Amino acid sequence: MFNFKIIKKDKETKARLGILKTPHGIIHTPNIAIVATKGSIRGISFDLAKKFGSEVFMINTFHFFHNDRYKIVGKFGGLHKFLNINYPLMTDSGGFQVFSLGFGMEHGVGKIADIFPLETRINADFNADKRGLNNNQHTNLRKSAVKIFEDGVEFISPYDGKKLFLTPELSIKIQKILKADIIFAFDECTSPLSNYDYTKLAMKRTHRWAIRCLDEFKATKNQVMFGIVQGGEYEDLRKESAKFINSLPFFGFGIGGSLGKSKKDIIKVLNWTIPLLDENKPRHLLGIGEVDDIFNSIEEGIDLFDCVIPTRWARHGTVFTFKGRVNLKSSKYLNDKKPIDLECKCSVCQKFSRAYICHLLKEKEIYGIMLLTEHNVFWILNLFKEIRKAIKENKFLDLKRKILKYW
Amino acid sequence: MFNFKIIKKDKETKARLGILKTPHGIIHTPNIAIVATKGSIRGISFDLAKKFGSEVFMINTFHFFHNDRYKIVGKFGGLHKFLNINYPLMTDSGGFQVFSLGFGMEHGVGKIADIFPLETRINADFNADKRGLNNNQHTNLRKSAVKIFEDGVEFISPYDGKKLFLTPELSIKIQKILKADIIFAFDECTSPLSNYDYTKLAMKRTHRWAIRCLDEFKATKNQVMFGIVQGGEYEDLRKESAKFINSLPFFGFGIGGSLGKSKKDIIKVLNWTIPLLDENKPRHLLGIGEVDDIFNSIEEGIDLFDCVIPTRWARHGTVFTFKGRVNLKSSKYLNDKKPIDLECKCSVCQKFSRAYICHLLKEKEIYGIMLLTEHNVFWILNLFKEIRKAIKENKFLDLKRKILKYW
Repeated sequence: MFNFKIIKKDKETKARLGILKTPHGIIHTPNIAIVATKGSIRGISFDLAKKFGSEVFMINTFHFFHNDRYKIVGKFGGLHKFLNINYPLMTDSGGFQVFSLGFGMEHGVGKIADIFPLETRINADFNADKRGLNNNQHTNLRKSAVKIFEDGVEFISPYDGKKLFLTPELSIKIQKILKADIIFAFDECTSPLSNYDYTKLAMKRTHRWAIRCLDEFKATKNQVMFGIVQGGEYEDLRKESAKFINSLPFFGFGIGGSLGKSKKDIIKVLNWTIPLLDENKPRHLLGIGEVDDIFNSIEEGIDLFDCVIPTRWARHGTVFTFKGRVNLKSSKYLNDKKPIDLECKCSVCQKFSRAYICHLLKEKEIYGIMLLTEHNVFWILNLFKEIRKAIKENKFLDLKRKILKYW
Repeated sequence: MFNFKIIKKDKETKARLGILKTPHGIIHTPNIAIVATKGSIRGISFDLAKKFGSEVFMINTFHFFHNDRYKIVGKFGGLHKFLNINYPLMTDSGGFQVFSLGFGMEHGVGKIADIFPLETRINADFNADKRGLNNNQHTNLRKSAVKIFEDGVEFISPYDGKKLFLTPELSIKIQKILKADIIFAFDECTSPLSNYDYTKLAMKRTHRWAIRCLDEFKATKNQVMFGIVQGGEYEDLRKESAKFINSLPFFGFGIGGSLGKSKKDIIKVLNWTIPLLDENKPRHLLGIGEVDDIFNSIEEGIDLFDCVIPTRWARHGTVFTFKGRVNLKSSKYLNDKKPIDLECKCSVCQKFSRAYICHLLKEKEIYGIMLLTEHNVFWILNLFKEIRKAIKENKFLDLKRKILKYW
């Protein structure tokens, strides 16, 4: 029912073409999962993304856990039925959201801290402080709403201040109820500001949790699980984690956690990690999706990505173009009769001017977000099609040079 | 190029079927213009609305005036080219927005006061107050940002606090630049709280402005203008206004201003007004669109409507159904596997459960708004199809009784 096969290896790089079979369809790799955080893509339908060539979607377990919404989904028989779509789905473990809630608070980094309203974050901080929940193993730049135990992680919901507890077993139980095709093990995600000692401690815990996830998962049908390699930006830890996770019976691998402080560090981390992973299993780089990082990672042997950039950028007025990134909110586009991207074949670029779109963005019209999401999702999926074609034709580095001239 | 023809009159009521030809297509009446305030429908494309049977769209001149955006549209050659659509369009005169900004502030009524951020409104009030701009002809429940002169109306932009001046001539000049098929004369819209004396004074001014609008409009090609009947809830004023506007060479009529304090008052006002209007010209009831009001007004001989309800309700989680109005934000729908409306043929009702939509609304997902907008626009356009069919088959009152059982 599930099967991953490498069908071609690039001659000049470690890039490869693969076919990942799932019960809901085939994913041609390299590929990117369009993110549908709470069960919808923000600005277009699943069907439209599918029409553009989208072969897999990523949904966040955290957003179905904190509000018990997974119980509703369970009554429907899983996400495919709840969303009424028949496409391959992934769910993450919820770990990233919980831990970035923690280190986002403490280090002022991470996405969660940005998306939750300040009042909620302050309340969460306040409650955490009162109850002594700040985690002293981190550098406490801010108070944390997250406390980590061997058994699991306790945290304050940034939505309603409720105390929640998530364990490896519970994450897998929820993901089994959600019934995505591909699920991820529950890991402790560390921040770029976590030091060596803490990153090592968290990695060891992630390894123990990986075993518990597999125990909980065993004999599950119609789903496969990816284990997650941690170890931050530290060579020996990344290698230790890659070897350990590789030794377990996961279907594939996620590479998570801090990939260092610069874009070059990503390449280093992948260079340490990937050679230690079974080459016949798929490799997913979690949460990465900038154009240069995509090329660099595929060059190191990454097969799968998931990233909010195409949809999040759209909500901020930013678009992908073959001449680089453009923010269409700038008033100079009000007089621009050209399409977003002269080389793009999407229906937005066939039909609308930058001027109209700039007008919609300035007026905060929902339709502006819809059009940019449509363009960005089309554009990034098209880029992956081009990449797969280039690998097939042994032109991957040519394409990389051509595209990265502007990125 | 433009032509309006009555093709059938109902036997039991004043309802009628008409065909309104415009350079961008035919509008079958009775019909409703879906509102695209700033040049887009909030949640779906023009093309999708067209596919659902939408035959005309209403765009607001005010939102292209206060920011000089009409100059940009002019460089493109008008709204059809700027939006790249080939469908019949209407623009209002901007009057409603300006005056409701005034009486919205003073009387705490009107839509503008609700949609602008409080800070802006307070600033506008403050500036108005400093500069002595409060209009003493109204009951001053709040300070006004609007001052009315014979020449036109001065007001403070609720967006940026800029002082603006709009005259009948400028409104028509802008509407000629925007190039909608059907445009409206610039009138003074009064509030349900305006007294007899003020309503009369404003009506007389509206009549003088109607002549100035026609002067400015003369010899315009590819556009027609509707004059607007005012007179509030006062029988003699409505009759005087209907006679006067009917005496001028407008292509059709808008019925605007206060229609009284209750739903029954609408019927009274239409009863006074419509018999005095040339029966061979189209009659548009401005800004009305609740289901019962639609039936009651068509019964009195109204041909055209425009209303934000289908799209605005969608943004607030409210949907039309054949069993009445439903707000899908209520938690009870989280377990409801039924579609929004069992009798609706729209693709949202074919595909999605109330539970999924309720989940999206609770999570404030854009896609939830998109789905509800799709449903509501489909539903209301379908209702008008049913109404036209019923008039054709002499079953208008049967349909009215059937639908209004739940509305």
